[in-house]
Amino acid sequence: MYSFNSKEEHIQFLETQSILPKGFRCAVRPLEFFPAEKELKKPLPMNLTLISLDEPSASFAGLFTRNSLPGHPVEIGRNLLKESFCRGILINNKISNVFTQGGRNDSLQLKDKMEELLGGEGFVLPSSTGIIGWKLPLKEMLAELPALKEDLQEESLLPAARGIMTTDAFPKVRTCTVGNSRISAIAKGAGMIEPNMATMLVFILTDADLPGETLQECLKEVCDQTFNRLSIDSDQSTSDSAFLLSSAMGGKEDPEAFKKALLELCHKLADDLVRNGEGTGHVIEVQVKGAPSEETALGIAKNIVNSPLSKTAIYGNDPNVGRFLQSLGDYCGNQGIEVNREELRMSLGGEVIVEKGAFTLNEEKELRLSRYLKDCSLETPCPGYPAHGKRVLLEIHLGQGKEEARVLGSDLSYEYVHENADYRS
Amino acid sequence: MYSFNSKEEHIQFLETQSILPKGFRCAVRPLEFFPAEKELKKPLPMNLTLISLDEPSASFAGLFTRNSLPGHPVEIGRNLLKESFCRGILINNKISNVFTQGGRNDSLQLKDKMEELLGGEGFVLPSSTGIIGWKLPLKEMLAELPALKEDLQEESLLPAARGIMTTDAFPKVRTCTVGNSRISAIAKGAGMIEPNMATMLVFILTDADLPGETLQECLKEVCDQTFNRLSIDSDQSTSDSAFLLSSAMGGKEDPEAFKKALLELCHKLADDLVRNGEGTGHVIEVQVKGAPSEETALGIAKNIVNSPLSKTAIYGNDPNVGRFLQSLGDYCGNQGIEVNREELRMSLGGEVIVEKGAFTLNEEKELRLSRYLKDCSLETPCPGYPAHGKRVLLEIHLGQGKEEARVLGSDLSYEYVHENADYRS
Repeated sequence: MYSFNSKEEHIQFLETQSILPKGFRCAVRPLEFFPAEKELKKPLPMNLTLISLDEPSASFAGLFTRNSLPGHPVEIGRNLLKESFCRGILINNKISNVFTQGGRNDSLQLKDKMEELLGGEGFVLPSSTGIIGWKLPLKEMLAELPALKEDLQEESLLPAARGIMTTDAFPKVRTCTVGNSRISAIAKGAGMIEPNMATMLVFILTDADLPGETLQECLKEVCDQTFNRLSIDSDQSTSDSAFLLSSAMGGKEDPEAFKKALLELCHKLADDLVRNGEGTGHVIEVQVKGAPSEETALGIAKNIVNSPLSKTAIYGNDPNVGRFLQSLGDYCGNQGIEVNREELRMSLGGEVIVEKGAFTLNEEKELRLSRYLKDCSLETPCPGYPAHGKRVLLEIHLGQGKEEARVLGSDLSYEYVHENADYRS
Repeated sequence: MYSFNSKEEHIQFLETQSILPKGFRCAVRPLEFFPAEKELKKPLPMNLTLISLDEPSASFAGLFTRNSLPGHPVEIGRNLLKESFCRGILINNKISNVFTQGGRNDSLQLKDKMEELLGGEGFVLPSSTGIIGWKLPLKEMLAELPALKEDLQEESLLPAARGIMTTDAFPKVRTCTVGNSRISAIAKGAGMIEPNMATMLVFILTDADLPGETLQECLKEVCDQTFNRLSIDSDQSTSDSAFLLSSAMGGKEDPEAFKKALLELCHKLADDLVRNGEGTGHVIEVQVKGAPSEETALGIAKNIVNSPLSKTAIYGNDPNVGRFLQSLGDYCGNQGIEVNREELRMSLGGEVIVEKGAFTLNEEKELRLSRYLKDCSLETPCPGYPAHGKRVLLEIHLGQGKEEARVLGSDLSYEYVHENADYRS
């Protein structure tokens, strides 16, 4: 369990995680623009982030949001997955380019220009995140691309982790090695995070020499176990994307070993994402065991983690555990699943709260639970780094089978409302 | 469109709505108790509310929550629906008696004692609302029942509307006539309101002389169109109940006319409920038209009304309309429904925001939308009465069919979090 006492301590840690795999470079350029849709006195800031391969690569994999009205870059990205070679990734924050007049053409122009500047074969994947409904400042962005290319460096991935942030409290970057290869990943996401599909922006870079199909399989399986099992709010973004790109300049790793390393890396990154959620006061882990199917276990866990009443109780350090039971019954009732009351067992922070058909609450237990919740709480608003790695653990055993699931989520705080009530101002 | 400038004005209105149908009386008694589960310095207050029929009646109907872990009174109530005669309803607030040791027996004892005191044939329906997980203070409640019976009066339903409140900002009572009969209804609910099933506590009294089966049909159809189409948060309570009881002492009304009057009454009561929601800053109405099925229309409307990001934007009077589109795409993506981008049309407060495959936003429109949202906003926290009857209207036309649905909901405010983070303290 980690703990950081200051932003500086956290940055020192991030620097140890920011090693670029062989064959990659990155660069970030800030720019300013006035949106077409709103008269502002001051321009808005945007970052352009470029991740490039020294040589075009045929080893890449991608997953995109299931939202049926995805952003233009997502639609373009889906098609690019069918091409033979990838050359890099061009990301902007601030505006997500969704459902805008001429938006598809805007993203294509950026992609084409970047490809032209980088030269060589292969596509550049465009990716955008931020406000939905506004147009990209195309002119300003195009003008910045040559300088972006000039700024490419291979020292650190940290500038890119920072560059893709929107309302994120801190950059998210993780690295690990497997055999003779390295995997490094950055992620952006603080709101609009839903456990379906690729969840926000995740860019994973590796030099492991594995074919695209293997990477796609690994990415799918790992995303299902990690990013698809976290929820900050119940909204699935129009731009969620996960992209795994290899320079193939490292070792020929065993696919299983690679997948295992990737899973561990993504588990850590998923926790980073929740901990950094908009106004997250507590990270919550719901484990459902003894379920008749994995689907049921997952459904119950997600319903609890998304229940506003459960979330606000945890935010208030109030062990109002009745709300967990209510949410469990809500899901099962809607799905027509009978709950065996006598077998049902629930624990919070290791304390049994439901057993043998009844709540088991008393004064001392309530006090212990309240202390437990306080101990797990994060500072809100987040001071720009995660104070610790503690989670509120809710365990549910249905006693109705052998399947299980685990979901990560966050509480619901004043800061969440504040952040989202005036996100654009 | 109504408007009230003070609590007094609102009370004057409520008094006009508080006429008891023929053959009904009601009473409320406060009591104090110390919960078994928590050491408190001061006792907690509870209200016991009794609604009684002068004569046992065979005309009654009920609907209960679909939550698979319902409260003990709900389980008892389901069985009572099979009996021949009803004599009254006994309601307590503060503790909901869900999943408690001996909780079933507690509710049965209260029911039996009340039946004994009232004398005559027929059951008394027990109903409880409040904290989940604590036991009822049975001794204190039983001791109060004789005085409760003594206090029965036929002047006003308003004390009962007040008696059943928990965190409600104001009492909710509505009345109307149909032919030679009257329908009056009270409702309790401010949180844990979800559009599935009967939604919180609703007690509808009438003297219309209609058989129980007709009442059950009417109640089911009307609840589906009203209480099941509103959402304050996405949580479905363990105690949601709607009960329709007739003294049969009025006219033999036409069932269709009765249903129509009931529908109108429940529409008003549903609006009252949302307007009084925990920390409601805006009442939101989402209308989805041109859908391939009613299920799709309803699913989209509910998804938007339950989207934390849409809710917080409205709370902040921020026309961040991209979030509505995101939520629409989220639902359709998860359901595998293709959205026809060119046909999709969205309006907020009558202003077109999406049309012909793109957002149609500009500075003036954003300003008008922001003013519109401000104009629809309610004071938070609610001063104890609804200031006005305005709603934020979001209209969506899919252009993919002829089906439609309408859902009412509320925004997500600081006050919601505050209310729910320390509900029990």
